[in-house]
Amino acid sequence: MPKKVQSAIEPTRAEDYPEWYQQVVKASDLAERSSVRGCMVIKPWGYSLWENIVDAMDDMFEETGVKNAYFPLFIPKSFLEKEAEHVEGFAKECAVVTHHRLEKGPDGGLVPAGELAEPLVVRPTSETIIGDSFSRWVKSYRDLPLLINQWANVVRWEMRTRIFLRTSEFLWQEGHTVHATEAEAIERTRMMLDVYARCAEEYLAMPVIKGRKSAAERFPGAVDTTCIEAMMQDRKALQAGTSHFLGQNFARASEIKFQTTDEKEAYAWTTSWGTSTRLVGGVIMTHGDDDGIILPPRVASSHAVILPIVRKPDDRPAVMAYVDNLVNRLKEQTFHGRRIKIEVDDRDIGGARGWDWIKKGIPLRVEIGPRDIEGNSVFVGRRDKGHREKESMSVDRFVAEFANLLDDIQANLYDRALAYREAHTRDIKDKQDFDDFFTPKDSDKPEIHGGFAVSPWCGDAACEAAIKEDLKVTIRCIPFDSEATDDKCICCGKPGSRSVIFAKAY
Amino acid sequence: MPKKVQSAIEPTRAEDYPEWYQQVVKASDLAERSSVRGCMVIKPWGYSLWENIVDAMDDMFEETGVKNAYFPLFIPKSFLEKEAEHVEGFAKECAVVTHHRLEKGPDGGLVPAGELAEPLVVRPTSETIIGDSFSRWVKSYRDLPLLINQWANVVRWEMRTRIFLRTSEFLWQEGHTVHATEAEAIERTRMMLDVYARCAEEYLAMPVIKGRKSAAERFPGAVDTTCIEAMMQDRKALQAGTSHFLGQNFARASEIKFQTTDEKEAYAWTTSWGTSTRLVGGVIMTHGDDDGIILPPRVASSHAVILPIVRKPDDRPAVMAYVDNLVNRLKEQTFHGRRIKIEVDDRDIGGARGWDWIKKGIPLRVEIGPRDIEGNSVFVGRRDKGHREKESMSVDRFVAEFANLLDDIQANLYDRALAYREAHTRDIKDKQDFDDFFTPKDSDKPEIHGGFAVSPWCGDAACEAAIKEDLKVTIRCIPFDSEATDDKCICCGKPGSRSVIFAKAY
Repeated sequence: MPKKVQSAIEPTRAEDYPEWYQQVVKASDLAERSSVRGCMVIKPWGYSLWENIVDAMDDMFEETGVKNAYFPLFIPKSFLEKEAEHVEGFAKECAVVTHHRLEKGPDGGLVPAGELAEPLVVRPTSETIIGDSFSRWVKSYRDLPLLINQWANVVRWEMRTRIFLRTSEFLWQEGHTVHATEAEAIERTRMMLDVYARCAEEYLAMPVIKGRKSAAERFPGAVDTTCIEAMMQDRKALQAGTSHFLGQNFARASEIKFQTTDEKEAYAWTTSWGTSTRLVGGVIMTHGDDDGIILPPRVASSHAVILPIVRKPDDRPAVMAYVDNLVNRLKEQTFHGRRIKIEVDDRDIGGARGWDWIKKGIPLRVEIGPRDIEGNSVFVGRRDKGHREKESMSVDRFVAEFANLLDDIQANLYDRALAYREAHTRDIKDKQDFDDFFTPKDSDKPEIHGGFAVSPWCGDAACEAAIKEDLKVTIRCIPFDSEATDDKCICCGKPGSRSVIFAKAY
Repeated sequence: MPKKVQSAIEPTRAEDYPEWYQQVVKASDLAERSSVRGCMVIKPWGYSLWENIVDAMDDMFEETGVKNAYFPLFIPKSFLEKEAEHVEGFAKECAVVTHHRLEKGPDGGLVPAGELAEPLVVRPTSETIIGDSFSRWVKSYRDLPLLINQWANVVRWEMRTRIFLRTSEFLWQEGHTVHATEAEAIERTRMMLDVYARCAEEYLAMPVIKGRKSAAERFPGAVDTTCIEAMMQDRKALQAGTSHFLGQNFARASEIKFQTTDEKEAYAWTTSWGTSTRLVGGVIMTHGDDDGIILPPRVASSHAVILPIVRKPDDRPAVMAYVDNLVNRLKEQTFHGRRIKIEVDDRDIGGARGWDWIKKGIPLRVEIGPRDIEGNSVFVGRRDKGHREKESMSVDRFVAEFANLLDDIQANLYDRALAYREAHTRDIKDKQDFDDFFTPKDSDKPEIHGGFAVSPWCGDAACEAAIKEDLKVTIRCIPFDSEATDDKCICCGKPGSRSVIFAKAY
């Protein structure tokens, strides 16, 4: 047996991927389970990662003319019922508010009182409540397009939860737009998907495939759902963002009508699009290694940690002065327009200190001791390299190269993730190959399988359902660049199909 | 009768202040009532004002070492019950989640189903749910102080709501800190109140009085509540922020214990502090005039609007080129570290255009027509001056003076508000004077009264209650600089008292 390499996370990815994920979340101090079923607590290290994602996206939204607003947390039951498919999709798992106070019950404990005439649902998504406002805001073609985004918490009472990936409450943004024409709404649907793809690829270093969902996987009430899909390191797909063309369905449900240029009344065309704290889970599973999370520098909670090495108390003043000077020089810089954030950790806890920051995924670790000061150097570890790999460099070079180092880490993470996805994506046209690809080789590790299969599908929902039933494999998306071919459907064998991405998914 | 001056808001402040407020909210496009009882929709113009307040405060929090995190929306009933006064304070008006799905009822409509074993309360404030996490995070004196803030929505089922000032759902921040010693927690309570005062005075141009609440007005469960109080233009007080020293009450309720330096186990000392979207209401009522809201430049959604004047179609290219050039020159600048935001409104709607921006309270309106271009000038209206007062100035001077103009508006708003408060604050030591001060002169306008009375109070809750009962006047705060005197209590006449601020309040 090969000797096991020491790593910070037990178990490793290869040993037990789902448990590795839980342990990385814990070791990185990103978040924890709360005492409320299915709800998470996002701790400061995780929250600042989310804040950086928010900032990046918010700027991109603004560039496309979108403005932020805020709508009520509660949706009257009757609003949800306005769109038949929509309520069908969300009624099964929603938090229902039925009372507006607690009062002493017969046994002395508090019981719900003040029953509401109409129950309220805690928003699982806000098409219907925002549509109610839009029906008042939109009167004429002059009011269009209306381009609104909301940063908010939403609740979906999921039965099986996993921190960041599927929680009862999560944070997200939901964009809602109204247009005079179908073409313009379709264009906006795609424009916002492109924003998501840019955020994923340029900021999170997470390569994604853009495409549309099959009818079975559409957002409840949408005419068309587009999405970005990323491959995690267990080769499963993560849907990282969706953008929906809603046609006139929700405009009809909410009575969003406008006077056209030729003075007729018409229903408007709407879109909605969302991404969530699930992206944090995506970052963990795209880049993390057996030592923990690796933060992409462009959204990292902090860019570097300085670890002063003080062996004798007498050395302290000189070391700390050197550290302060370095911190000040680094903070004069910016990184892609963001302030540089530097941590200084002078806790006296031995080797645990360096490991803490490795587990937290900070891009750069900088050790500074008396010898470094003598040599005017620093000792630098990059989080994207192995934890043993460290390099001594002159402090001037380090300061001058700081942003380049971060860019290099960012690019390396992206390249690695892309190579991983390419290595585990296969064109498969034979059903037996397809089954083999998705069948675990080792019954102890049912989660390990081939990855993404690019295979022909005839378009029939029955074929899609059969594959899902047999293999727990779904159509992740029909890539925008997929072309119609004469290939035989991977399920029914009928010719005349389209290449789609099949995968197991979160 | 004097001739009525034309103004944009009907009624004026003098005619009907509460209705003026509602009309300003509407005319400024800040927010609207939603279809959900007591909940508001914050529209883009109002939301960006809130975002600017958030940014300003967030930076100040960070400077004091506070980090942001996020905790669950839901609080199990049993958590709320852990602190007796706390649950007493909030159980009467809270949204209670009792079910986790909707399903078809006997008559075909959806009814709540999946009853929860324990009801959940939508957070009215998060001491108990955050305390649950803190009890796990805090183990040793090394983990202290713990300085956490959360930006979130909260729900209090208010019976009488008024937009921004008192709504069932509102946005806020709540800070929660844990300390090893009582002195440190008290110091933090005051430090955060000082941050609030700075935010109010420097950003919102809203002068405030800092002090502590009487026992009757304390936060439920707190040992001491400190606050900032501002005077609105109907001379009523607005509590604009509170900071609570919680002693060990919530530490005991949530079992937040730590190992001390001498290895004993001790309960920690905690604080909490909050401000909310109510501040937006405060901005409206502090600065607004009969033409609408006036935005303080440091938090304004936008700094200036350019209004191109195109009388002949042929003029358009030249005017728009001149406008673009001006916008670019202004956007090269920053204002107190913030990006300059400029609106260009070239709608062809006549005089309504200028009025729209007056009602929206934008600090500067800049008209540019062919004549201005000829003279290399701009025609500038300041929102803090009357709507008729406009000044022509050279475009170069306008660009050079832009930030100074904004600073001048900011200072003018603050000075005016301070002068207003001083004009309506009176030292009163005689009970008859006190009663007269708070008794409306005109029975048609029951809201008009004297303002703030600085009067002696013996400290007895019975006197406080009697005054509240008689006059609807409460002790807003005991100013930090108030000294003990031999003056007679304004209510019972007993000597040995302290000067406090009495007022009617929102």
